[in-house]
Amino acid sequence: MQISRVVSDLVTTKRVFALAAKSLRVVEDHKGNLDVVVDPVGAKPGDYVITIGYSAARAAAGNPNITTDLTIGGIIDQWDEERWRS
Amino acid sequence: MQISRVVSDLVTTKRVFALAAKSLRVVEDHKGNLDVVVDPVGAKPGDYVITIGYSAARAAAGNPNITTDLTIGGIIDQWDEERWRS
Amino acid sequence: MQISRVVSDLVTTKRVFALAAKSLRVVEDHKGNLDVVVDPVGAKPGDYVITIGYSAARAAAGNPNITTDLTIGGIIDQWDEERWRS
Amino acid sequence: MQISRVVSDLVTTKRVFALAAKSLRVVEDHKGNLDVVVDPVGAKPGDYVITIGYSAARAAAGNPNITTDLTIGGIIDQWDEERWRS
Amino acid sequence: MQISRVVSDLVTTKRVFALAAKSLRVVEDHKGNLDVVVDPVGAKPGDYVITIGYSAARAAAGNPNITTDLTIGGIIDQWDEERWRS
Repeated sequence: MQISRVVSDLVTTKRVFALAAKSLRVVEDHKGNLDVVVDPVGAKPGDYVITIGYSAARAAAGNPNITTDLTIGGIIDQWDEERWRS
Repeated sequence: MQISRVVSDLVTTKRVFALAAKSLRVVEDHKGNLDVVVDPVGAKPGDYVITIGYSAARAAAGNPNITTDLTIGGIIDQWDEERWRS
Repeated sequence: MQISRVVSDLVTTKRVFALAAKSLRVVEDHKGNLDVVVDPVGAKPGDYVITIGYSAARAAAGNPNITTDLTIGGIIDQWDEERWRS
Repeated sequence: MQISRVVSDLVTTKRVFALAAKSLRVVEDHKGNLDVVVDPVGAKPGDYVITIGYSAARAAAGNPNITTDLTIGGIIDQWDEERWRS
Repeated sequence: MQISRVVSDLVTTKRVFALAAKSLRVVEDHKGNLDVVVDPVGAKPGDYVITIGYSAARAAAGNPNITTDLTIGGIIDQWDEERWRS
C-alpha cells in the first residue's frame, strides 16, 4: 500500500457503468505523480491516506463489482510531510 | 487509476481471439509514455481519460473474457494540462 | 518479493472495515521509498523482511478477506545492508 | 497493454511444467528493456506487437493453466519507430 | 516475465506458514536490483532464469496456496550478459 495525499475531486460524466456511483479523487504520491482513486471513507483534500492497489482495490471499495484498481484504505492520523517528500 | 490522453486508434489485424472485436486506442501518460487500451466508452483523440489496470480492466471492458490489462474507465470533463505535464 | 526494512508502526483510526484489526507498518526499500504493509509475523523496527505483493498479499495475511496489496512474508535472519543500499 | 518489438526466441530446456509446450520470445520496450513473453500468434523478430500482462496474460495464452505473466496479444500492422523511441 | 540472475539463497527462519517449506533465492535484474523468488526448478547461483510474477507466480510454484508473487519459471540455456547489462 502507498501513502498519498488527496488533491481534489474528479468529475467524469461519461464513465463505465461499474464506476457509476462512486466518489473519485485525485491523489498525489511523494514525487507529485497523480493517481485516481475510489474513496469509500470520505477523505478531504490535504488528507494523507493509504491507497490499496491491484485486485484488493475492488474488495476495499466495498463491492467487488466496482472496477477500480486503486482505493483509499484509510486516513493516516499523523504524517510527517518532510520525511515523505525527501 | 491513471490519467492519460488519447493519441490514436491502433490497428492489429492479427490478434488473439479474445481481443477480436474490441476498439483499441493508443494513450499517453503525463511523461509521454505510450500504452494500448480497450475503449468501451468511445473516446476521441485528445480526450483526457482515466484508465483502469490489472484484473479490473477485464470487468471494465464489459466482459471478463476480454483479455485486456488496461481499459478506459471514463472521460474526464475538464483537465488542466499544465498541472499534468509538470 | 521485495526486501524491505521496517521503519515504524502506522496509525489510521479511520479505515475500511476489511483492514480493521490488522497491524500496519511502514517499510522502506533500498532506495528509501516507503510502503505500508500488513504484518502477520510481528516484525520490529529495523528488521529486514520480505514483502509479498499483489493478490498473494491477501492470502499471506492469513485471511483472503483482508484487503491488503502488500504483506510481510518473513523476517530475514541476516542481511548485508551495504549490498542492499548500493 | 504495452507496445514491444520481438527480438529473438528464448530457449529454456529446464522449465516448470506449465510452460512446457509454449513458444517463448524475448521482446524489448521503447527503452530497450527486455521481457520474456508467451507467443500464441506466431510473431517474428522485428515485428511490433502488443503485450498483455498480469492475470489477463494467462487467458490470452489460450489456456488459463499456462503460468505466464506476459503474452503477445496481436501484431501491429504499422508502427512509427521514430515516435516510439523518442 | 523477467530475465534475472540467481545471486544466493535466502534464510528466513520466521515466516508465514504458506511459504514454510519453499526454497527462496535472491535474484538480481539487469540493473542489479534484488528480488526474492520461490525456486521450484533448483537453480544455482550464477544461473540466468526467467521469473514469473503476479498471480501466475503461485501456480508456477506448483501449488496455488503458496503465497509468492515471484517464481522461477525456467533456466535459460544460454544468455549474453553483455546484451543484458547494457
